[in-house]
Amino acid sequence: MREFLVIFNEAPTTPERVRLKDLPGSGRFDLVCRVTTQALLYSHGVRTDSVVHLLLRGPDDPPKLITVTGRRVRRLYPDERTTAIHLRRALAAEPGTEPHPGFYVRRLDLEELLDELSGATLYYLCEDGKPLEEVDPEEDAVFVLGDHEGTTPEQDELLRRRADAVISLGPVPYHADQCIVIVHRYLDVRSGP
Amino acid sequence: MREFLVIFNEAPTTPERVRLKDLPGSGRFDLVCRVTTQALLYSHGVRTDSVVHLLLRGPDDPPKLITVTGRRVRRLYPDERTTAIHLRRALAAEPGTEPHPGFYVRRLDLEELLDELSGATLYYLCEDGKPLEEVDPEEDAVFVLGDHEGTTPEQDELLRRRADAVISLGPVPYHADQCIVIVHRYLDVRSGP
Repeated sequence: MREFLVIFNEAPTTPERVRLKDLPGSGRFDLVCRVTTQALLYSHGVRTDSVVHLLLRGPDDPPKLITVTGRRVRRLYPDERTTAIHLRRALAAEPGTEPHPGFYVRRLDLEELLDELSGATLYYLCEDGKPLEEVDPEEDAVFVLGDHEGTTPEQDELLRRRADAVISLGPVPYHADQCIVIVHRYLDVRSGP
Repeated sequence: MREFLVIFNEAPTTPERVRLKDLPGSGRFDLVCRVTTQALLYSHGVRTDSVVHLLLRGPDDPPKLITVTGRRVRRLYPDERTTAIHLRRALAAEPGTEPHPGFYVRRLDLEELLDELSGATLYYLCEDGKPLEEVDPEEDAVFVLGDHEGTTPEQDELLRRRADAVISLGPVPYHADQCIVIVHRYLDVRSGP
């Protein structure tokens, strides 16, 4: 199972804050949407071996964790707007429920989630890490990354302490959704056809 | 210079056909937008060494070629909606003009564009090609790919004839925007910091 955990410190946690006509101005909700689709979709298919955890920590009701599971998800399309509508519905729902198939929302912050995932191999994606090819990460693992502003110093410290390795994807700083594409492709090629 | 040429056989060529509330239903215009941004943006920056050619061949006024140039582009944001608005403006403009900085629209089809690019090394991205790492493509090159439906048999034949190599990115069929991320990252790592 490939799991991705992306930390969005400014992304909204109430549906009213998600404006479909201005996703970038809605705490960079466009990035939350792209992370979801790039983690779970390839051409004409859903990655049923993948899961993405979206940790939203912005206004007005943080934290909320939305976990989207490839094996369960229905009607996930690659565009931002449709995905934003699914995620907004998850923000409107009671924590602990699955308001749309494959979208599970909970009240959980980073440390609790890391505790829950503690059996898994954990990789923290950060620009000062070791090259991806050198670490050669396991297939069954959790890849953790920050959003466009990165992680807070506290989150960074916690992740470095808990991670099995810190991974850098190259000399260019990528968007979180681009990082996910790169990790998927690395593992796809290594797994073979 | 890294150039990408993506062929969208169904993407609209008139602004009325681009519905911001339904980009996927607008001839998969969501993919046109993501191709644009993934070709030209990284985290907090524009790739000034990159150009993307969007060959649109759908209704009602095909063909139209929109070339977006990293060195010239202004106000390019990573979300689909803002990019769709820029591209729609290009579709409303007279061919041969640049209605928004860095967005140049022309009346040009595939063969004419390939003639124009004939000095450059051409790579055709296709699932039956040679592995990316084996081809080890040049930095200054044009990477050509199809949209979610691929190329037509005529386009495919033309591209195989004109390409210096046919490249496969791995065992999974990727979206065109994901292909671009993968090629960029390969070249980024090889170029080094």
